[in-house]
Amino acid sequence: MKKVLAISGSLRAASRNTGLLRYAQANAPEGMSIEIADLRDMPFYNADFPTPTPPVTRLFEQLRAADGLLLACTEYNYSIAPALKNALDWASREKDNHLLAGKPTALCGAAGGMGSSRAQYHLRQVAVFLDLRVLSKPEVFSNAFGESFNAAGDPVDEKLQGQIKQQLQALLAVL
Amino acid sequence: MKKVLAISGSLRAASRNTGLLRYAQANAPEGMSIEIADLRDMPFYNADFPTPTPPVTRLFEQLRAADGLLLACTEYNYSIAPALKNALDWASREKDNHLLAGKPTALCGAAGGMGSSRAQYHLRQVAVFLDLRVLSKPEVFSNAFGESFNAAGDPVDEKLQGQIKQQLQALLAVL
Amino acid sequence: MKKVLAISGSLRAASRNTGLLRYAQANAPEGMSIEIADLRDMPFYNADFPTPTPPVTRLFEQLRAADGLLLACTEYNYSIAPALKNALDWASREKDNHLLAGKPTALCGAAGGMGSSRAQYHLRQVAVFLDLRVLSKPEVFSNAFGESFNAAGDPVDEKLQGQIKQQLQALLAVL
Amino acid sequence: MKKVLAISGSLRAASRNTGLLRYAQANAPEGMSIEIADLRDMPFYNADFPTPTPPVTRLFEQLRAADGLLLACTEYNYSIAPALKNALDWASREKDNHLLAGKPTALCGAAGGMGSSRAQYHLRQVAVFLDLRVLSKPEVFSNAFGESFNAAGDPVDEKLQGQIKQQLQALLAVL
Repeated sequence: MKKVLAISGSLRAASRNTGLLRYAQANAPEGMSIEIADLRDMPFYNADFPTPTPPVTRLFEQLRAADGLLLACTEYNYSIAPALKNALDWASREKDNHLLAGKPTALCGAAGGMGSSRAQYHLRQVAVFLDLRVLSKPEVFSNAFGESFNAAGDPVDEKLQGQIKQQLQALLAVL
Repeated sequence: MKKVLAISGSLRAASRNTGLLRYAQANAPEGMSIEIADLRDMPFYNADFPTPTPPVTRLFEQLRAADGLLLACTEYNYSIAPALKNALDWASREKDNHLLAGKPTALCGAAGGMGSSRAQYHLRQVAVFLDLRVLSKPEVFSNAFGESFNAAGDPVDEKLQGQIKQQLQALLAVL
Repeated sequence: MKKVLAISGSLRAASRNTGLLRYAQANAPEGMSIEIADLRDMPFYNADFPTPTPPVTRLFEQLRAADGLLLACTEYNYSIAPALKNALDWASREKDNHLLAGKPTALCGAAGGMGSSRAQYHLRQVAVFLDLRVLSKPEVFSNAFGESFNAAGDPVDEKLQGQIKQQLQALLAVL
Repeated sequence: MKKVLAISGSLRAASRNTGLLRYAQANAPEGMSIEIADLRDMPFYNADFPTPTPPVTRLFEQLRAADGLLLACTEYNYSIAPALKNALDWASREKDNHLLAGKPTALCGAAGGMGSSRAQYHLRQVAVFLDLRVLSKPEVFSNAFGESFNAAGDPVDEKLQGQIKQQLQALLAVL
């Protein structure tokens, strides 16, 4: 059984980005289990206080156990939501433990306009330094403001649901 | 007297990025005063709790009073440090007040490798949406790990000091 | 009368990107005239043969006469079409003549998927070095493969037509 | 014997970017042979004339035979040199033949300022669409204007030479 840690850049309960991850979790292909990280108590990384507190340590444990990553790249102002970037920044400080390097990673996202693509290309640049092995295809960009999601943030569009499933299959193939 | 709000992406006391801002503050050209924002108590933006708390409100007041911005673009993992991005994200939610749109803005930064350039180009994309008027030139990229800074994070390299002064003059010219 | 030089990244006759420029030319606001550059005979820039040939010289003359630029940013493979980039590269070599620096510039584009946005953000980074003053808003992204264009490449969608006119007004305001 | 096709974005004879490729060719690890493409007669891609001419056909044949790619990413004006981008654009039109998709790829480059990094991150975005499998590490950025190259464009700096050899080993490991 391959373990995937899913992380969303949005902290709100009805986030459509977190909704993408819930759908993935409920529809993981055979041989894959998905856990969703909770970033709500994560502090900002501050090099004056580099010791991980419990919410940080918990994330590290989840990352250490993960064979791969699924990142829901919330976009704020044409770039990555700070909560997601901060989680990766914290993890990058634990270099001895290889929390990130070499891990197969899939990106998805929901946003207005360009479907989070502007933020996802920034996240791909971050992944170069972190040596995350990001899938090129399929890319999953979804419109947060159309009818693709219900009020709880769950994806209800069949085409989008199919893209998520297809991406999970592509991820599983390289785990 | 033109007011400039300076914001650093790093929260640590001896940050070289914050050091760039201290140098700018102490060497502001005639007709410009520089205030440095303190982001240490800023919470992550969370759309479930959009009401600004006092640290957020204080930033809004500083932005409202500012004629222009000076951003020290700390780079973590090839992109923008979350603390800086989060401050801009919070401010972008107060759309009626024009905290950001149209404001002349200068970027500087210190980092290893490419001198924070990788993060600064991401920040320039953020500025497109926020309609910040970012100076094209001079760009200020400095090496955080050479001898350009002392242990307190203050820039001690004369060439770098000159670039900061030149950038402030360019900023003043468009305020 | 303000002069705008319009340049398209596509060389084909029925290009939708060139179609955006034709529409702009035919609908220029009062006080603005638009000329469309022809890049079909431009050679690749090669530093071993830096002397401009007639097609290059002609572009230089058009740029020298222009108060501003309108660039149709054809996207190939998620970045700028070489013909447009090459035109800017050639012009950047004529530094004494200020063919580009400081010129107000508007970007538009038509492409599949993200409407040329991926290429336009790359072009904005190019503009930092060239010191082109690119309008932040409105951004014009159009879908090349829907019903926004006719077979000749002319934009027939009213909303898109309105965006072009709005962008030309914003450009005129800063010429 | 694994075959690598090396492509430089610069057309000039003493190009430092092409010099990086010559050094790689002369120092290929055991089990790898490197051929350098010649782009000097390649036309701009024009969808009105999509039939490949002999210089294009020759590039296609070289790509078809290649197990992997080594791209010297000449930087002009903070982005990719058109000659390199155009070669990739041409190849992307031959979709049936899988000239590019899935091929392990290493990037290097020489430029002023940031060592071609600004262009290389754009090229990495291009690679997402083309499904090139670009190595995250090591990244090879070199200063074209220091003493790292001789007048013929050959790299003479030992550290740089070592980086090239290290990159070729990393590339060979995934061919």
